[in-house]
Amino acid sequence: MEFRDVIRKRRMVRNYGPEPVPDEALDRIVDAGLTAPSAGNSQGLGFVIVTDQATRRAIAVIAEEEEYVACGFDPWISRAPAHIVITVSEQVYRDRYREPDKLGPDGEEIEWPVPYWWVDSGAALMAVLLAVVDEGLAAGFLGVHSVPRLGSLLGIPSHHTPIGVVTVGYPMADRRSGSLARGKKPRETVIHHERWAG
Amino acid sequence: MEFRDVIRKRRMVRNYGPEPVPDEALDRIVDAGLTAPSAGNSQGLGFVIVTDQATRRAIAVIAEEEEYVACGFDPWISRAPAHIVITVSEQVYRDRYREPDKLGPDGEEIEWPVPYWWVDSGAALMAVLLAVVDEGLAAGFLGVHSVPRLGSLLGIPSHHTPIGVVTVGYPMADRRSGSLARGKKPRETVIHHERWAG
Repeated sequence: MEFRDVIRKRRMVRNYGPEPVPDEALDRIVDAGLTAPSAGNSQGLGFVIVTDQATRRAIAVIAEEEEYVACGFDPWISRAPAHIVITVSEQVYRDRYREPDKLGPDGEEIEWPVPYWWVDSGAALMAVLLAVVDEGLAAGFLGVHSVPRLGSLLGIPSHHTPIGVVTVGYPMADRRSGSLARGKKPRETVIHHERWAG
Repeated sequence: MEFRDVIRKRRMVRNYGPEPVPDEALDRIVDAGLTAPSAGNSQGLGFVIVTDQATRRAIAVIAEEEEYVACGFDPWISRAPAHIVITVSEQVYRDRYREPDKLGPDGEEIEWPVPYWWVDSGAALMAVLLAVVDEGLAAGFLGVHSVPRLGSLLGIPSHHTPIGVVTVGYPMADRRSGSLARGKKPRETVIHHERWAG
């Protein structure tokens, strides 16, 4: 699909048909995530692809899917035929930036005014979400604050933090997030030229 | 351009030709960044597009571009005809998650096990980097730890943190980052099926 169409079509979809997602499509989607930039080429990300029904149901249980359903949403978490969990390890980044070529003049680690492990995980998330659209599929996202115990469920090492679950499937009509009613901020308050204005 | 080609071609490029980047291309690139997901539709990001030569040179000075040049790199920061600074405000996210529909059962704010403002900024960064490739251009990235005083130079409000500078231009032959010599981690150590393995 054309890049512009992928960008234009991408949105969070919270309902899916029952057809499974081909393994090759999941591989291409995760491979797109792997092309995201990585500070210092640290490569501190991890991906867990879940298609097993019992595991997806367990994720839906810890996400309290029944509360979504009580609010009028579809059971979009258990219904999604595939889940992709993205994880990131701060430790891998810190270890990388303690290597000789990354230390400051006095042998000190940089101060990390921005924690680039989270930024890189977001870049990978976006690549995954866009690649999903390119496959003719749709994705939702469940932040990890909604899924406590996800790490222990999937055996994720303690130094990796899951950032959340990307739900993947063939799109069906869905109920949109209530947050969309907030509308879009005016473009001129977000995009500035030469210098921040206002 | 096809999405798969955009993903395949994207890499950090650190040298550019002198041709300016059309304003419409910069607009499309930043608009792609604006399509990134935003937790709770908080919309806490900002973008500053810089094309003014004196400002780009000032950014190159605070980035100590001369040290890159001393290491054999091109003067890629001052040479890039456009800079896009991406910023994010934690405060905007926290204010959003103190609105009634986002509070917990006892009226408390969520605990933010993952700081989604950084994740969202990374998602926008990836969309920008990919949109640059779709325009036939190339981009580099300068982390904000390399550009102290960027916020004051551009008048960015103190509650917005710049995550860095995306340098944009027409690609020229460049020296690659030394970090690439680290190679790629084996795919099976990064991508797991059903459960984290190893």
